Amino acid sequence: MKILLIGYGAMNARVARLSEERNHEIVGVIVKDPSKDYPYPAYDTFNVAPEADVAIDFSNPELLLPLLDEDIQMPLVIATTGEKEQIITKLQEKSYKLPVFFSANMSYGVHILKEIIQYAVPLLEDFDIELLEKHHNKKVDAPSGTLVQLYDAIKEKRDQTYPMYNRHETNEKRNPDEIGISSQRGGTIVGEHQVLFAGHDETIEISHRAQSKDIFANGAINVAETLIHKENGYYTYNNLHEERN
Amino acid sequence: MKILLIGYGAMNARVARLSEERNHEIVGVIVKDPSKDYPYPAYDTFNVAPEADVAIDFSNPELLLPLLDEDIQMPLVIATTGEKEQIITKLQEKSYKLPVFFSANMSYGVHILKEIIQYAVPLLEDFDIELLEKHHNKKVDAPSGTLVQLYDAIKEKRDQTYPMYNRHETNEKRNPDEIGISSQRGGTIVGEHQVLFAGHDETIEISHRAQSKDIFANGAINVAETLIHKENGYYTYNNLHEERN
Amino acid sequence: MKILLIGYGAMNARVARLSEERNHEIVGVIVKDPSKDYPYPAYDTFNVAPEADVAIDFSNPELLLPLLDEDIQMPLVIATTGEKEQIITKLQEKSYKLPVFFSANMSYGVHILKEIIQYAVPLLEDFDIELLEKHHNKKVDAPSGTLVQLYDAIKEKRDQTYPMYNRHETNEKRNPDEIGISSQRGGTIVGEHQVLFAGHDETIEISHRAQSKDIFANGAINVAETLIHKENGYYTYNNLHEERN
Amino acid sequence: MKILLIGYGAMNARVARLSEERNHEIVGVIVKDPSKDYPYPAYDTFNVAPEADVAIDFSNPELLLPLLDEDIQMPLVIATTGEKEQIITKLQEKSYKLPVFFSANMSYGVHILKEIIQYAVPLLEDFDIELLEKHHNKKVDAPSGTLVQLYDAIKEKRDQTYPMYNRHETNEKRNPDEIGISSQRGGTIVGEHQVLFAGHDETIEISHRAQSKDIFANGAINVAETLIHKENGYYTYNNLHEERN
Repeated sequence: MKILLIGYGAMNARVARLSEERNHEIVGVIVKDPSKDYPYPAYDTFNVAPEADVAIDFSNPELLLPLLDEDIQMPLVIATTGEKEQIITKLQEKSYKLPVFFSANMSYGVHILKEIIQYAVPLLEDFDIELLEKHHNKKVDAPSGTLVQLYDAIKEKRDQTYPMYNRHETNEKRNPDEIGISSQRGGTIVGEHQVLFAGHDETIEISHRAQSKDIFANGAINVAETLIHKENGYYTYNNLHEERN
Repeated sequence: MKILLIGYGAMNARVARLSEERNHEIVGVIVKDPSKDYPYPAYDTFNVAPEADVAIDFSNPELLLPLLDEDIQMPLVIATTGEKEQIITKLQEKSYKLPVFFSANMSYGVHILKEIIQYAVPLLEDFDIELLEKHHNKKVDAPSGTLVQLYDAIKEKRDQTYPMYNRHETNEKRNPDEIGISSQRGGTIVGEHQVLFAGHDETIEISHRAQSKDIFANGAINVAETLIHKENGYYTYNNLHEERN
Repeated sequence: MKILLIGYGAMNARVARLSEERNHEIVGVIVKDPSKDYPYPAYDTFNVAPEADVAIDFSNPELLLPLLDEDIQMPLVIATTGEKEQIITKLQEKSYKLPVFFSANMSYGVHILKEIIQYAVPLLEDFDIELLEKHHNKKVDAPSGTLVQLYDAIKEKRDQTYPMYNRHETNEKRNPDEIGISSQRGGTIVGEHQVLFAGHDETIEISHRAQSKDIFANGAINVAETLIHKENGYYTYNNLHEERN
Repeated sequence: MKILLIGYGAMNARVARLSEERNHEIVGVIVKDPSKDYPYPAYDTFNVAPEADVAIDFSNPELLLPLLDEDIQMPLVIATTGEKEQIITKLQEKSYKLPVFFSANMSYGVHILKEIIQYAVPLLEDFDIELLEKHHNKKVDAPSGTLVQLYDAIKEKRDQTYPMYNRHETNEKRNPDEIGISSQRGGTIVGEHQVLFAGHDETIEISHRAQSKDIFANGAINVAETLIHKENGYYTYNNLHEERN
C-alpha cells in the first residue's frame, strides 16, 4: 500500500518503520509544520499531499480536526485520543464517501480482551470485579485509557457499577457494585491490564500484556490492509471483520 | 431439601457438612457396605432408602452403575468420574422419567472458564495456545481431568490441534497446531488452570483458581436446588439455567 | 502440649481444632466473660487457670494487656494486633522469666517473604518497587497489616521511600522514591501480597498467597512447639530458630 | 569506550546499536569470514584488529576458542554458550594478564533472580519447588539455558533434588526431592522464568520477565563499563561489584 501518515510522533515513526518492513511505502506525512526536518515529504494539508491508498493517523485533535474538514479522497485509519465526540461526528460524516476506521486503541488483543470481558460479565453475576493496570514510570495519567475502556465495557453489562479508587481512605466493606481500580507504574512496562472476578472460594482472572508498542502500529497497518477493500462506511473493531450482505 | 447421598468419601462428607450449614437435611447415604459406621443411616440400594428431594452422587462407577439400574424416584445430581459413556447412556434413559444432571466437574467457575475459552479461541486464531495446571503434591494423575476438559473445549473450536507434553525431548520449533500441556505439583494447592494465548508482541491469559474443594460440593448443592424445580430431562451446566419454552 | 488459649474468637477456635488434630490438648481458655458458653473450661485470669505448657494468644489489647500484669508461669505465644508498643514493652519485661514470642503475623511464609524482600531490595537499586495486596470482600481496612509490614521492611533498606496511594489523582511522572500501594477486594480471597520490582526491560515479582487462615493458627502452634524448649527471652521469627551459644 | 565485537549475530548487532545510543564507539568486529559485508571493519583475528577499551563477545565456541589462544591486550566480556568448561579454563589463564568477565546469561535481573532463589531455598525447606519458563515459538530447545541455571542454583542449596519432566507419564505422588520443570512456547515471548515454592496452605512465587533482548546487550555493555576499571582477574556477576581490598 501507499500510506500517508497524519502526524509524525513516536507512534507514526514506528508505523513507518514497520510498514516498510512489511513492504508498504510511506508517501508522505501531514504535520503542523512541514518546514521541519522529516524523513518523508511533509505537508500541512491533504490538498497538496500525494495520492495514497490509505491515511494512518496517530496525532492529536489540534492537527486532526481541521484536516477532517478537507475534501479527503482516501480511506482513513484514525487513532487520535481526546475530543472523541467531535472526531466521531466528523468521521461519521466522512464515512458516506469513504471507508473510515476509528479506535482509540489500535491493539487487536485489547479489543478482543474487551469482547471476552463483556462475554464473561453476565456469566459471573455473583463475582466481584477488580481492575488493575501496569505501565512504565514515565506515564503521567492514571488509570490508563485502556483501563477506562475496560471499565466502560463492564458497565455496559453491569450497569449499577461504580469505580472505587481510594480503598485506603475508607473503612467499609466492599460494596458488590464497586469496581476497584488500581494502577501500578514502574520501569519500562509497556502495558498490562488484569480483570479479576472473585467469587466464593474461586477466582477467574483475564489479563492482557503488551510486550511492545509495535502492537498499536501493526494493529493500524493490519486495519488499513483490510479497510482499503471495504465499502464506504464507519468502522470500528466491532464491525470491521463482519461480512456485508 | 432432603438429600440422599450416593457414596460417602471425602467429597460427600463435605457435601453433608455444607448442606447442613445451608439448612438442608441429609436423610441417608447409599454405600457399598452399610454395616460400616457412618454418621447417617446407610443403605446399599435405593429400594430401602428413605424418600428425598434429590440424590447427590460423588462416588465411583462400581457403586453408581448398578444403582442406575434400579427404579429411582428422585432427581439425580451425578459427579462420578470414569466410565463416562456408560454413565451418560444410563442417565439419558433415566432422564425420561426424572430430572438428571451430570458433570464430571461440579465447579461453576470451571464451567464458565470453559465457556469463556470457547468464546475466545475463534477470536484469537493467530495466537498460540498453552495450558498449565497446578495441584497439590498428593495428586497422582497428570494432567488434571479439568485440564483435559479445557483441552477438549479448545479442540472443538480449533480442530487441528494436538497436545504436546514433552517439549524437553524435542528439538524443533513449535508447530502452530500444538497445544503445550504442563502440570505443576506442590504443597496443598487446590487447583489452578491457566490458558495462555500468545500472539505477536501481546499475550492474553485466562485463569481459574480454586481456593477450596467446597466449590465442588457447593456447586452440586446449587445444582440440586435448581434441578428439583426442573422438568424431566438430561441436564448439564450447558442447559441447566436455560428457560424451557 | 497442654495449651491455654488467650481469647476465643475465630482464630483461636481454629487453633483449638488444629491443635487437637495434632494431638495437643486445650486445657482452657482465658476470656473476658467466662460465664458464656465455651467448648473448653473458661477463666478470666491466669491465677485460676490450669497449668499448661504454653499459652497461645489471638485476642485484643483490651483482654491481653491486663493479663500481662499477672504473674504468668508458662511460655507465651502472642499474636494480638494493636497497641504494639505497649505489648512489646510488657512482653520484654516478662521475657526475663519466660520464653515469650511475639508476631502480629503468625504465618511463617509471610515472615520469609519479608526476609526475601529485604535481601532483594539492595540488589535491585535501580528498580521501581510497587506493592499490591488482595483480600476478601469483608475486609474493611486497606492496605492490609501485612502489606504495611512489607512496606516497612522495604523502607529499612531504601530509606528515602514514601508510599503513593492515589495515582489517579496526580498527573505527574512516578518519582523513583515512591512505592505504589494497591489493594484489591473480592470474594473470599484469604490473602495475596505481591512485590513488583520493575527495571529497564525486565521485571522481578515476588508474591505470597495464603490459601487458608490455617497458616496463622498452624504458625502459632509450630512456634509454641519450638518455644517450650527455649531459654527465657524475647523471641520473634527473626531469632526463634537461631542457636544460642 | 571503544568496543571490539566478537561475533556479529543478532545479539552483537543489538550491542552495536545500543552502544552507539550510549555514545560508545564500535571500532570493529571479529568474525569467521571478514570478507562478508558488515557495517563495521571486519577481522578474523585480534592480531590485525584495532585497539579497543574492551571486547564484547556473543558468539560461539568455534569462533571464540581459537581466538582465546591469541595474545589479547584488552578486557574481555564473554557470553558464548556451549563448551563452558574449555572456555572457563582458557579465560582463567587469560585472567592473570587481563580483566575477564564470563556469564552465559548477561541479564543482571536473571543473575539477581538466581541470588534471591539461593537465599530463599534454605528458608523454605518444607516447600515443594517447581520451575516454569516461557519463550517465543521459534525457540527449539527446552528447557531454556536460564532455567537450567536456576535449577543448578537450587540444587547447590538442596542437593538431593532431581528434575521431573514427564508428570503425565507417571502415576505416582510427587516426591519431595523432585523439581518439576515445565516449558511453554508461544508468540514472541522474550523470556519468563517462575520459581514456585508450594507449602502447607501457602505459596511463594518468584519470577523474572524479560521484555526485550536488550537486557542481554545492555547487561554486557554495563559489565564492560565496570570491567575496564578492574584489576586483572576472573570475574562473574558474583564478584564483579565487590570491592577489592
